[in-house]
Amino acid sequence: MKVKVVESVLNANDAVARSNKKVMDEACVLALNLMSAPGSGKTTLLENTIPSLAKEGRSAVLVGDLQTSRDAERLGVSAAEVTQINTGRGCHLSAAQVADGLKTLEFDDIAYLFIENVGNLVCPASFDLGEHAKVVLLSITEGDDKVAKYPTMFQPADVILLTKMDLMEHIDFDINRVKDDLKHINSKAPLFEISSKKGDGMDKWLDWLKDRRSNL
Amino acid sequence: MKVKVVESVLNANDAVARSNKKVMDEACVLALNLMSAPGSGKTTLLENTIPSLAKEGRSAVLVGDLQTSRDAERLGVSAAEVTQINTGRGCHLSAAQVADGLKTLEFDDIAYLFIENVGNLVCPASFDLGEHAKVVLLSITEGDDKVAKYPTMFQPADVILLTKMDLMEHIDFDINRVKDDLKHINSKAPLFEISSKKGDGMDKWLDWLKDRRSNL
Repeated sequence: MKVKVVESVLNANDAVARSNKKVMDEACVLALNLMSAPGSGKTTLLENTIPSLAKEGRSAVLVGDLQTSRDAERLGVSAAEVTQINTGRGCHLSAAQVADGLKTLEFDDIAYLFIENVGNLVCPASFDLGEHAKVVLLSITEGDDKVAKYPTMFQPADVILLTKMDLMEHIDFDINRVKDDLKHINSKAPLFEISSKKGDGMDKWLDWLKDRRSNL
Repeated sequence: MKVKVVESVLNANDAVARSNKKVMDEACVLALNLMSAPGSGKTTLLENTIPSLAKEGRSAVLVGDLQTSRDAERLGVSAAEVTQINTGRGCHLSAAQVADGLKTLEFDDIAYLFIENVGNLVCPASFDLGEHAKVVLLSITEGDDKVAKYPTMFQPADVILLTKMDLMEHIDFDINRVKDDLKHINSKAPLFEISSKKGDGMDKWLDWLKDRRSNL
């Protein structure tokens, strides 16, 4: 019985996700689902990404959090449109929540939609939202064992960002361990090493975004 | 319908949790449920805690991870008994998984049972395991906004450990913001600032553990 309910929830989610994707395609908006553990730097990444994409067009953001509108307030400075989705006890965004969020956004001249998922390295991986690509962040402060320990998140990633690289000299982190684990779990997604704070590595990430948008 | 299924799962979990607690009480073992985001330092904390409790008695550990037995291997060096529980896609430990794990442990001369939950700052908060106390870790590298953003985890905590304090000088983290948020969410749990790596603050945490065990 329990399995049937779960399958039905996932099927219903996928149907709404397909509908969301159609909305994005028709508006010619590249939709990205950003996922990571809490505090890996999703909001800081967006604060530093959105202004650099201004020439390509404006960005909209849907932000998922259990509580507070702090991330939406931070992103309101640079993004053209921001909607905060509070999930209460919910551990991930669903396609239906994103569908509701989409209704709050004006898509005129919007080139990119960033969907910042709830900080959680497990549950969000199971729920498609209608995005064109899944972006997974891993902060080096979380340790070099996380790819092997959370394979369900890293396996479907389209791009992986290793964040907070500016802290490398202060912590024990073996980047080769991450690369070796990715060879077994996901050898296709590019891995970019970045520091949003210092700007290092941001060019490759921005080029990847522009390339994906131009191939919509 | 969906709510009924969820309630029934939680009720079934609570019944097994009560049974687990009875087993712990009869064995005079203090059981602690360690919860945090991925990479907050649960395993490193235990590597540095267990040897310091040797005078009080031996420690056993149940470790939850989606995949790998890396944490169990690390903890096997210091703990008397260690069992790894792999949850697959499961985002938290359940009381039933802990009940199965308890059957694998020998409780002779065991004083402490540490249950290291799956790294996840949302879901584990909803599932009692039969523990005597909930220990929640927050690494300062995750940011000072996490108490407000994840209140369901911090509200039921019996003790909160602020970890990786040795990195304070390299990051932006306002400890007063955490303390202010805790005043609204959980004003009873003590907050200990620690660095497992350098040993700072470990004495207060160890004293808290010994005190809780002596009051079993």
